[in-house]
Amino acid sequence: MMFRRLALIGTGLIGGSLALALRERGEVGEVVGYSRRLDTRLAAERLGLIDRPADSIAEAVAGADLVFVATPVKAMDAVLGELAACLPGDALVTDGGSVKGAVVERARAHLSAGQLARFVPGHPIAGRERSGPEAATADLYRGHRVILTPIEENRAEDVARIEAMWQATGARIERLEVAHHDHVLAATSHLPHAAAYAMVSALARLAERYEVFRYAAGGFRDFTRIASSDPVMWRDICLDNRDEILVMLDHYRAELDCLRDMLESADGEKIEHYFHEAKAVRDALYPVAQANGANPVSEADETGR
Amino acid sequence: MMFRRLALIGTGLIGGSLALALRERGEVGEVVGYSRRLDTRLAAERLGLIDRPADSIAEAVAGADLVFVATPVKAMDAVLGELAACLPGDALVTDGGSVKGAVVERARAHLSAGQLARFVPGHPIAGRERSGPEAATADLYRGHRVILTPIEENRAEDVARIEAMWQATGARIERLEVAHHDHVLAATSHLPHAAAYAMVSALARLAERYEVFRYAAGGFRDFTRIASSDPVMWRDICLDNRDEILVMLDHYRAELDCLRDMLESADGEKIEHYFHEAKAVRDALYPVAQANGANPVSEADETGR
Ligand SMILES: NC(=O)c1ccc[n+]([C@@H]2O[C@H](COP(=O)([O-])OP(=O)(O)OC[C@H]3O[C@@H](n4cnc5c(N)ncnc54)[C@H](OP(=O)(O)O)[C@@H]3O)[C@@H](O)[C@H]2O)c1
Ligand SMILES: NC(=O)c1ccc[n+]([C@@H]2O[C@H](COP(=O)([O-])OP(=O)(O)OC[C@H]3O[C@@H](n4cnc5c(N)ncnc54)[C@H](OP(=O)(O)O)[C@@H]3O)[C@@H](O)[C@H]2O)c1
Repeated sequence: MMFRRLALIGTGLIGGSLALALRERGEVGEVVGYSRRLDTRLAAERLGLIDRPADSIAEAVAGADLVFVATPVKAMDAVLGELAACLPGDALVTDGGSVKGAVVERARAHLSAGQLARFVPGHPIAGRERSGPEAATADLYRGHRVILTPIEENRAEDVARIEAMWQATGARIERLEVAHHDHVLAATSHLPHAAAYAMVSALARLAERYEVFRYAAGGFRDFTRIASSDPVMWRDICLDNRDEILVMLDHYRAELDCLRDMLESADGEKIEHYFHEAKAVRDALYPVAQANGANPVSEADETGR
Repeated sequence: MMFRRLALIGTGLIGGSLALALRERGEVGEVVGYSRRLDTRLAAERLGLIDRPADSIAEAVAGADLVFVATPVKAMDAVLGELAACLPGDALVTDGGSVKGAVVERARAHLSAGQLARFVPGHPIAGRERSGPEAATADLYRGHRVILTPIEENRAEDVARIEAMWQATGARIERLEVAHHDHVLAATSHLPHAAAYAMVSALARLAERYEVFRYAAGGFRDFTRIASSDPVMWRDICLDNRDEILVMLDHYRAELDCLRDMLESADGEKIEHYFHEAKAVRDALYPVAQANGANPVSEADETGR
């Protein structure tokens, strides 16, 4: 057993799934959970994500040797502030936030030097559109990547323990620099989410929206699936990784402008070349999916946040 | 048996799948196929999509009572031109092109009044990223929509026969005005495809493209899947439905600009509201997918072109 007692701060999809996975593998003794609303705590208990609900962060972390923070990233400011006042001396802390720079900044602002050393930031690249305790599953992380972004204050053995913890869930662990994480994720996850919300909005504003959506088929469904994600979580991600997302959004808008120009001038050759290049990149990216019609990793609902 | 002999002009995904479906249901006696390249004709024969290959359009349609044109839409100009010279007097003609206005224009330009009356334009809203004869399947159309866009010259009984033909494949038939089809499809299919190509291009241009794609997870995969579609087919669609696509592209760019402004000014409330509205529309759109995690129709690879 890796940990005696896990305290979940945030008992939704990401927190609940970690608890289920660790418990299934016998890697955790007891799970105590805190979330803002009583309902959410009780649901987490009823669903067996946690052994018992706590009425405060202090109550949740008392006696814990592992604390997992899995609230939306903005809320981590208050959570880390409270944790600073009540964290047991030997507890390791990690989180599942989709942005790392802003979370680390908050940790530096609130935690003592000793506490900061034991805070190993992380981000599981697994998720789904549905959220809340009901959406949690024991195999959410199996076969998916978890990115750890250790900070210089971390001790190697603490990072290794968090890594082993994630490995127990079946995830593949990678390490990235904090800023690099935010840069890469802006491109592969944050920009596509913003684009999907904007696409649905564009169609929703058409006068014939009902009819338009009636003819929207599978390609559109997949393309816009991520626009069903939690608005609060994505508001927070946008605000916390604003600079990187703005840069990527501008790259994307430049591509659309360029495609618009080719269309405007009806330049078939350029359009075909443009599509051809994109297809080549996309096909190289998912060769398994191309060959077999299905990508093993994709069977799970990996939304790559 | 509905038809004695089907002539396929274009023996790829869309043409081959229709032939397989009709044959499986015993609704067609013989299938003769023509495509531009000999290789494609021979592959279609080897794969059992057609009974025999023809060396010309004239040879293919001789003795046919149904002609299905399933080439990229620009190529239909030449195909319809040739058909005008060799179409048997009693043959019905339909097509599977993703744009209808430009195809109908071509038909009007080439066909005689009598031929035009027997040309019933259509568009199956089913497809996949892979194309060519190898991608054809007998159940491609099952449970999917086929939009017919009859023209005023058509006789009601001919439209009914084409409708019955598609029904035999398991498709659900709808009728739309030609222009209305192109307007609706620009929004639900053509714009998303353009946006997916642009998204992949934006990421491909990053200096760290290899690494970026390495962390691209399932959400990104689904989001960009349609960028693996055939560049020639999509070039043709873009050129043929240019005006409608330009309008939709401008709507979409306006949404992205609006989202950019909210981000720039870090307006959390507006961002959350924006995401919330889009999510509400998206969730209303796919209630089954929401409730069950899977939409029956979506099991097939419906890309909605
Ligand atoms: N969903 C994904 O696909 C995904 C993937 C990777 C990473 N992440 C990250 O994981 C984190 C959690 O996401 P999730 O999908 O698990 O969301 P979720 O299912 O909505 O769970 C969030 C949890 O945080 C609690 N919470 C919210 N505000 C709080 C506050 N101020 N104080 C204490 N608890 C609070 C919620 O409880 P109440 O109901 O009581 O508010 C809920 O238990 C986010 O940082 C997100 O960026 C998500
Ligand atoms: N793919 C989809 O998801 C989808 C969905 C709905 C509608 N459509 C429409 O269906 C049509 C066919 O698409 P598809 O996916 O079946 O494409 P495909 O698999 O590439 O098949 C196209 C066929 O047309 C032939 N062809 C190309 N140019 C030709 C020409 N100038 N003269 C004669 N034959 C020619 C090709 O033969 P060669 O190999 O010899 O060139 C091939 O047999 C297009 O109009 C498309 O817009 C496609």
